[in-house]
Amino acid sequence: MLSPICWNEGRVRIIDQTRLPTEERWVDLERVEDVAEAIRTLAVRGAPAIGIAAAMGCALAAAKHEGDEPEALAEAVRRAAKELAGTRPTAVNLFWALNRIRERLDRSLAASISAAAIRDALLAEAQAIREEDIAACRAIGSLGAALLPDKCTVITHCNAGSLATGGHGTALGVIRSAIERGKQVRVLADETRPLLQGARLTTWELMRDGIDVTLICDAMAGHAMRLGMAQACIVGADRIAANGDTANKIGTYSLAVLARRHGLPFYVAAPFSTVDLSLADGHAIPIEQRAAEEVASPRGTAFAPEGVEVFNPAFDVTPAVLISAIVTDRGVVRSPGLREGLLGLSRAE
Amino acid sequence: MLSPICWNEGRVRIIDQTRLPTEERWVDLERVEDVAEAIRTLAVRGAPAIGIAAAMGCALAAAKHEGDEPEALAEAVRRAAKELAGTRPTAVNLFWALNRIRERLDRSLAASISAAAIRDALLAEAQAIREEDIAACRAIGSLGAALLPDKCTVITHCNAGSLATGGHGTALGVIRSAIERGKQVRVLADETRPLLQGARLTTWELMRDGIDVTLICDAMAGHAMRLGMAQACIVGADRIAANGDTANKIGTYSLAVLARRHGLPFYVAAPFSTVDLSLADGHAIPIEQRAAEEVASPRGTAFAPEGVEVFNPAFDVTPAVLISAIVTDRGVVRSPGLREGLLGLSRAE
Repeated sequence: MLSPICWNEGRVRIIDQTRLPTEERWVDLERVEDVAEAIRTLAVRGAPAIGIAAAMGCALAAAKHEGDEPEALAEAVRRAAKELAGTRPTAVNLFWALNRIRERLDRSLAASISAAAIRDALLAEAQAIREEDIAACRAIGSLGAALLPDKCTVITHCNAGSLATGGHGTALGVIRSAIERGKQVRVLADETRPLLQGARLTTWELMRDGIDVTLICDAMAGHAMRLGMAQACIVGADRIAANGDTANKIGTYSLAVLARRHGLPFYVAAPFSTVDLSLADGHAIPIEQRAAEEVASPRGTAFAPEGVEVFNPAFDVTPAVLISAIVTDRGVVRSPGLREGLLGLSRAE
Repeated sequence: MLSPICWNEGRVRIIDQTRLPTEERWVDLERVEDVAEAIRTLAVRGAPAIGIAAAMGCALAAAKHEGDEPEALAEAVRRAAKELAGTRPTAVNLFWALNRIRERLDRSLAASISAAAIRDALLAEAQAIREEDIAACRAIGSLGAALLPDKCTVITHCNAGSLATGGHGTALGVIRSAIERGKQVRVLADETRPLLQGARLTTWELMRDGIDVTLICDAMAGHAMRLGMAQACIVGADRIAANGDTANKIGTYSLAVLARRHGLPFYVAAPFSTVDLSLADGHAIPIEQRAAEEVASPRGTAFAPEGVEVFNPAFDVTPAVLISAIVTDRGVVRSPGLREGLLGLSRAE
């Protein structure tokens, strides 16, 4: 199984996703700043993978900190957590993972264990976050696979695959699990402008697994639906509000509107850590705005006149009313009733 | 006024739109094959401009033909028309313009005029098609301007501007005319993957005119509407069936679905020559399929793994039910009643 991130002898090993698909380049990150930069530049991306990276970044800060004074070590870890929290605003898994690390740190301090033991504890926590994410993807896959017809074509947007998680994937995990069960699932992959995670990453990892995938431009999904080429849509999520409103890669909302018009089910697949019960609905989800160059000159090629004004939100919010079901590792919640369903799952821990 | 095509001392002068916006390069086409290739490669594009190019290509064939035998000249023109008709299937203006040339040729033959006079007649017809198109854009602009609020932001898709016509533009002609009348109109331009006519051409020609334009990726239009950033959509057309179903650049359909969801008016602007009354509805409009490279490696940059499967339809069909009004040079027809309206205009000639 492809996993885009792991701990490697005191460093954080990642596959540099900015280089895919032309180059499969693994990088060992040595400093917290490198991890933060990798998140900022999308060398590591995907809400669950960002959470893992942030946790491992904190473990890295602890490992690199010299000295045996627990409080000084804790201070270094807190600084790292603060830096990592400032990298990207939308995916809640980042803050969730950092909170887990901070809580583990506080418990360790309260238990008066040594600096060395704190280092071990934080690394164990980061490793656990990664392992639990892989298990969550497996659970999501298993629960979601039941939703897909025995033979179907599914449209997906962005990359919610192995590369976005510890491994297996959320949206693509559902597809992989369905295929493991013998279902015939084909994929139409939105290229996902501006950063082309669909064209570069989703196609790459599905082709690697021998899964039937066809690349389309984002604006072709509606036409494909009109031609009867798809039976469902499935996407990942960066943050899910208490009512089911879901922030995900820009363009997800348009896809959901088109799915509704064509009577296709629209599924969101994400670990329960993506659910942010502190937000009543999607209005309060912060939407990251990114640089004009990503739109105007992607991968260094001039697509537009110099100096053109650009609007480049990285995410949009799909209202719960357009979502047929949310597939989490704790269970599937269906519409209507997403709010009650999510609340129920939150108590089911 | 910018005009992308004209007759220049026995040759067809065009601006090479594949080079924009990085290079403003004018080319003189010397042979019919060059004109056909320019249409095929989208150096000339936009339904009305393709019609003008095809007519001028026939005039070029006549000018280049040596010999004084009218029937031999006519045969050369018919061969040219056949070659030009095979360049692109969707825009009906191409076939409409070629029919006008063929009819003028037949009238000339029937009148037993000399080969030299036939050459003059065909050039005059091609020039007339261009002049009439500019006048049609002016009329469309004038009629359409009345539809826009005094202060608004309009989303447009692809390029239905000066570059797509003899000059002034259809969709962008409406915007230009509205601004000439003192309305404050801002434009959100869909980049229009795969060939980026919005990013490369619409931004370029609007910035050249000092019109306020902001570039977005196609998948951002829905989010922009949700934020209340737009009050209307206006697009061009490649072919309009008798009931108002409209073929236009791929992605137009998605935009229309989003406009409907948000209660925004969705306008189509096109010369009446774009209306194909021989087709009852949009199902019979042939949709051009183009090469995978346009999606997978635009402008030479690898966006996707080598050998990836690609679906690349160049157009889609927006059903009449999603169109608020069609603005033609002969008048505006409103929904419901597009079929009756178009039929009425056809009789109004």
